[in-house]
Amino acid sequence: MLSYAYTVYYGTFIHLPRLPDEPATLTSPPKHRLSINHGALWVSQAEGKIEGFDWEVKNEHGLKKFIEKMGWKAEDKKGEDSDKDEVRKLVRIVKARKERNGFFFPGFIDTHIHAPQYPNSGIFGSSTLLDWLETYTFPMESSFGNKDSPIIPPPTAHTVYNRVVARTLSHGTTCAAYYATIHVPATNLLANICHTRGQRALVGRVCMDDPTICPSYYRDDCAASSLSATKESIAHIHALDPSQTLIRPIITPRFAPSCTHTSLSQLGALAASTSPPTAIQTHISENVNEVALVAELFPDSKSYADVYDSAGLLTPRTILAHAVHLSPDERALIAKRSSAVSHCPASNSALGSGFCPVRQLLDDGIAVGLGTDVSGGWSPSVLEAVRQACLVSRHVAFRDENEKKDVINGEAGAERKSPNREKISVEEGLYLATRGGAGVVGMQDAIGGFEVEMWWDAQMVEIGGLVEGNDSGEGGDEGGCGSSNVDVFGWESWEEKIAKWVWGGDDRNVRAVWVAGRLVHGRDC
Amino acid sequence: MLSYAYTVYYGTFIHLPRLPDEPATLTSPPKHRLSINHGALWVSQAEGKIEGFDWEVKNEHGLKKFIEKMGWKAEDKKGEDSDKDEVRKLVRIVKARKERNGFFFPGFIDTHIHAPQYPNSGIFGSSTLLDWLETYTFPMESSFGNKDSPIIPPPTAHTVYNRVVARTLSHGTTCAAYYATIHVPATNLLANICHTRGQRALVGRVCMDDPTICPSYYRDDCAASSLSATKESIAHIHALDPSQTLIRPIITPRFAPSCTHTSLSQLGALAASTSPPTAIQTHISENVNEVALVAELFPDSKSYADVYDSAGLLTPRTILAHAVHLSPDERALIAKRSSAVSHCPASNSALGSGFCPVRQLLDDGIAVGLGTDVSGGWSPSVLEAVRQACLVSRHVAFRDENEKKDVINGEAGAERKSPNREKISVEEGLYLATRGGAGVVGMQDAIGGFEVEMWWDAQMVEIGGLVEGNDSGEGGDEGGCGSSNVDVFGWESWEEKIAKWVWGGDDRNVRAVWVAGRLVHGRDC
Repeated sequence: MLSYAYTVYYGTFIHLPRLPDEPATLTSPPKHRLSINHGALWVSQAEGKIEGFDWEVKNEHGLKKFIEKMGWKAEDKKGEDSDKDEVRKLVRIVKARKERNGFFFPGFIDTHIHAPQYPNSGIFGSSTLLDWLETYTFPMESSFGNKDSPIIPPPTAHTVYNRVVARTLSHGTTCAAYYATIHVPATNLLANICHTRGQRALVGRVCMDDPTICPSYYRDDCAASSLSATKESIAHIHALDPSQTLIRPIITPRFAPSCTHTSLSQLGALAASTSPPTAIQTHISENVNEVALVAELFPDSKSYADVYDSAGLLTPRTILAHAVHLSPDERALIAKRSSAVSHCPASNSALGSGFCPVRQLLDDGIAVGLGTDVSGGWSPSVLEAVRQACLVSRHVAFRDENEKKDVINGEAGAERKSPNREKISVEEGLYLATRGGAGVVGMQDAIGGFEVEMWWDAQMVEIGGLVEGNDSGEGGDEGGCGSSNVDVFGWESWEEKIAKWVWGGDDRNVRAVWVAGRLVHGRDC
Repeated sequence: MLSYAYTVYYGTFIHLPRLPDEPATLTSPPKHRLSINHGALWVSQAEGKIEGFDWEVKNEHGLKKFIEKMGWKAEDKKGEDSDKDEVRKLVRIVKARKERNGFFFPGFIDTHIHAPQYPNSGIFGSSTLLDWLETYTFPMESSFGNKDSPIIPPPTAHTVYNRVVARTLSHGTTCAAYYATIHVPATNLLANICHTRGQRALVGRVCMDDPTICPSYYRDDCAASSLSATKESIAHIHALDPSQTLIRPIITPRFAPSCTHTSLSQLGALAASTSPPTAIQTHISENVNEVALVAELFPDSKSYADVYDSAGLLTPRTILAHAVHLSPDERALIAKRSSAVSHCPASNSALGSGFCPVRQLLDDGIAVGLGTDVSGGWSPSVLEAVRQACLVSRHVAFRDENEKKDVINGEAGAERKSPNREKISVEEGLYLATRGGAGVVGMQDAIGGFEVEMWWDAQMVEIGGLVEGNDSGEGGDEGGCGSSNVDVFGWESWEEKIAKWVWGGDDRNVRAVWVAGRLVHGRDC
């Protein structure tokens, strides 16, 4: 029974406003700034969307007046005995605690994560992409098939998928673009688990049918079986969530080397055949050896991007993971097709893939979001991806300033730009993690910020209480070291507190997470 | 009253054995391997040192037999009523919980950390070294002086220094080489706090007397006052800990640009004048603009390293932070003087300083440890420094493989080495964080490993319990997401579990920390 009409969120709200498109010639420092407001925001319990906000509500007294003005009645407990008229006026109040430096922030969007690889997080040794796939990834993914049954996923799929969804929610990820495995039952299970736990997700069955590259123990039999299995999984997801509000299918050719051209083209055609067209995700130009392999496997294609384009896979609903080593022509093609890039800095650093020129991608008009790329990336946290995006951009800036003066991003003799321009600021990193990601998954009008009519996909963050002069520093107590890894001393501006959260924060700071207004993660401790 | 003679630690013990010096011509992959033993290790309560270990103690029954064989008596509570003979036989048992994947590991050694900068952690914007000093660092450090008193440190020094020592202990740092500020009272307070809380530390008053570089509001009046204030602080630390077992002074010229040559030479002479000679710490070759500035300020010196060498500051007890942009001649000079390097990868990445060629430093015979470099580095965790050292080495490998084929580390035409050789493995990162650091602070025979006669400077780590098939994934319970950020599924080898800890672990995994046998950090939750 619906026990109240609205939830009123009260406290500090921080998000990144959308900017008008930046011109490609922009040479000034990044413009993204935090929007910081204090007040009340209300979410319809039935719809799960933001219905309005009022930044004039300055304090508890003002909140009380505001509730009265709206004709509402605040309640502490669920009004289970209330009659229908009464319920229409009942509101629940959720506060971000000021004394703990609490605030509401849009949920993070992970635009690239391999759910079945989660148990391998942190295990990659000194490998690079192609040997890492052979050594760690394919064996792990293959265990999501069930030798004993063609329709029931193995126990490991339950365990791992429940854990990865719980973990990502605990880190504030309200929406994720998941790669599953080639197995339809396990892929469908992942969709079910996201649906049950309430995480917004795009779930893709992985397609890989090229016998010359894919291992015999883990591949699709042929392009036709790739296609039919993909259709099966799409049908399941459509049945699971006919409105496609929470869970959507996404067509997932692993990457060019693992797919025959026949398969790529059939999958491109499949994406275009549905109404609305189905989203697509794949990898591109992650590693120099991979790029060379693609050139060898597809001698008739002009480029890696062209392999996908000629198969009809570069669409406005396509997510391309990595994009580290694209040529200027490839970037232009991707921009022209309005395809988007998932930047996965942790993974690129861990596997030594290279330095992704994110500013260049943005300058070229390509939409960019962040991906954890578990388990090429070691962490399921998008906040870690924000940190790594900031760091990688500083590496790009250093390199361009000091080591590659004449060759910037493949363009010999390109005009020198300010090295600081390459740098992704904390604010930009957070923009990529929210607004950027929303654009990449095709939901820029529905999630990623606090605007009326957007879903309430949000997290309540507590940075932590002030360090006291007589603090013992012991864990356990609220103000001690145990409850947050971030220390606030009292002089910090909100911008500085946010910087401290980005660099020092973790899942302990995520106190509650909502998707479409539903509480999907919360901790009492 | 001493209530027991020994503490017997029981469970899994992991450390990095010392290797014989690797020859500079080594081309094979890194040799460092974890040493993993299960059994009992005992520490004399009076001495705080490891007296022995027995890896034949395989289980609880074996432990009981072992205690009997030694003529000891295990007790659960403190035997406060015991007579003296009885006490000699009483032992306390501390176990690392197998079901939580617990193990004992040497305490981390942070070879470079600026304690007063801790409140600025994560706040650096898009700055690089020299503007970062002006904008963030000097104003913060200057607040550790007390305008109202020349002898009493200001309240902020109490708050910050207590917090930074508590925090670093909570991350498993049992020994740290601290930079304080130019203020003697606050520097002495830091030494007192380390002493009281039981953290092994080298504590240095910062010297900076060059009026052309240092800001007027934060500098020593002249070389003479730099020297006398340094002596004052050294005298305090000698009085605090006459045996120098826990707290040692360290002479700390900030870096060449902030010091006159007179000051540098006087500090070099001061270090040599004590018996034993006093340790020295400073920065070298962190940033290309800094390197250019040193060349401009010291036109008569052959190099940055030569500035220090000519002042008598390159000694076997010298810690040089960063060393990112050294020339081959400088590396040879530093190796010849047996000075050591503190590698600070997080800081170098955050401030965009460059890519430190750690393998090259090691190949050249230079001892290397890790530094957090708070707050150029954003984290007080040495485990984070291990991660960043691994990542930076992968950047070096990628760059050398793909972008600088003809110019490797300044040597044109140098023979190509395997790019994988550049990579620091998890095991090597942990070696640098323990054994490497011990060598850098001149205590290689006393800390950094589990050998008889070494101090019991250790941490008990719990990676976390197994993920259960029916796990709810909610925080709070022992097996849930709340107690550890690392997930173990049951199939992992110890090497894989250690990799997971390194990449996913944090202070939550540090359950207890001891220095010289004393419990200095522990959490109940």
